[in-house]
Amino acid sequence: MAFSQRYKITVEYDGTFFCGWQRQRSDAAFFDSGHNGIAPLPSVQGTLEEALRRLTGHVVLIEGAGRTDAGVHALGQVAHFDLPVLFDPLKLTAGLNFYTRSSGVVVLDATLVPGNFHARFSAKSRKYLYRIVLRRAPLALDHHRAWHVSLPIGEPLKLTEMQEAAQTFLGTHNFHAFRAAACQSKSPIKTLDGCLIRSVEEGLELEVQARSFLHNQVRIMVGTLMAIGRGKLPSHIIGELLKSGDRTKGGPTAPPDGLYLRSVQY
Amino acid sequence: MAFSQRYKITVEYDGTFFCGWQRQRSDAAFFDSGHNGIAPLPSVQGTLEEALRRLTGHVVLIEGAGRTDAGVHALGQVAHFDLPVLFDPLKLTAGLNFYTRSSGVVVLDATLVPGNFHARFSAKSRKYLYRIVLRRAPLALDHHRAWHVSLPIGEPLKLTEMQEAAQTFLGTHNFHAFRAAACQSKSPIKTLDGCLIRSVEEGLELEVQARSFLHNQVRIMVGTLMAIGRGKLPSHIIGELLKSGDRTKGGPTAPPDGLYLRSVQY
Repeated sequence: MAFSQRYKITVEYDGTFFCGWQRQRSDAAFFDSGHNGIAPLPSVQGTLEEALRRLTGHVVLIEGAGRTDAGVHALGQVAHFDLPVLFDPLKLTAGLNFYTRSSGVVVLDATLVPGNFHARFSAKSRKYLYRIVLRRAPLALDHHRAWHVSLPIGEPLKLTEMQEAAQTFLGTHNFHAFRAAACQSKSPIKTLDGCLIRSVEEGLELEVQARSFLHNQVRIMVGTLMAIGRGKLPSHIIGELLKSGDRTKGGPTAPPDGLYLRSVQY
Repeated sequence: MAFSQRYKITVEYDGTFFCGWQRQRSDAAFFDSGHNGIAPLPSVQGTLEEALRRLTGHVVLIEGAGRTDAGVHALGQVAHFDLPVLFDPLKLTAGLNFYTRSSGVVVLDATLVPGNFHARFSAKSRKYLYRIVLRRAPLALDHHRAWHVSLPIGEPLKLTEMQEAAQTFLGTHNFHAFRAAACQSKSPIKTLDGCLIRSVEEGLELEVQARSFLHNQVRIMVGTLMAIGRGKLPSHIIGELLKSGDRTKGGPTAPPDGLYLRSVQY
């Protein structure tokens, strides 16, 4: 049997520069033709696979823990891949960062892992962060990095109602009302281990933790909680949505700009 | 005498997109020819003056509180200008933000002020923030937003020595050793009212406050403090530099990426 070593990498990226985590058909064309100004945005996966090919000469598939959408950021995405050669993890990290330089993705760390480690299926839980900036003026420094919400004068956010409503999500529920129409997950049953909203200097931060999430789940949860905070939906709507599974009765899907895959636990 | 109303605006910008606060000869050419891919970066002042011209039809000079360099950011730069018409401050803010949209500069606030208010000369003090990220990997999300310092393994930063050395700056001193060669200030005597270094999640933050600063003063202070933290300079060097005025004996000028004009007090 040929030698094969599995590697685990932790990755940070600015989702603004990518079509999402997952490699698209257009990635190959993107790398073959180079930037021609009209090529679509690259994927994070494709960018890392290309860097790995340039560094090692091997064409390998990189498997990520979470398939983040276009515009969604990561502070600690995790991925794995196999190489038929033994690479020093520090040199692998530095080499990948050389080939991905200025692309918007950075490898924070690389480690050798056993062959049965799987970035996606071995994950025990995932943490996401969602940032909301509440102010009238548009965002200069946080442009693409947070959801900008301008509240009408005299209509402050009902933070306590939002925080109470957020607790309804905790535990095991049918999250059918909080998934994208295109969601491919077999079951809509998910268990939320953490759901916290805290007030920060310029707005709000929401932190959620679960073993896994449905497609757009966090963004629809945030959109619905914000609708409650703005008085457009009653706070008991969340319990009703978890029972009815009716997506049309919830809030809008919050934009990807504010969403960060914070970390993955194994 | 013709009617004239003075306006004060507070401005946030991402310095990455600008050649600095001050208008350059090339700004006019930039706006006349449009982006052609080879034009130099615009200035913040020029961008705001052009937005004001488009909004009001008047060509006016905008005077800023601090002339930030290329790559330096602002959370709360202040500027003033005069218009021969009375404008509602909320409409002025919204109008300027319409014409500067996606440029990297945003007007946070506009107010009517008396004709003797001067953004630069009326300022009682200015606060700057400097962000340093300490880690091996390059920066994805903080690229251009912080100074990236990768410490060699086994050489941790001497934070306490840095914090003690920072106290030496407090009070009135001759800051000649902490100014750029091109600094146009008549006197190198400045009074530092605050100088604090604190440890944050991914590195350090330095906060300084003074009535005014010399050209590059904060960046040379940060570069010298980091040289002390890394053991390349002794902590008593700061007292010596304030006495000798010898720029060549200090640390390097820290990059603009980490510097933010936080606020201006009147």
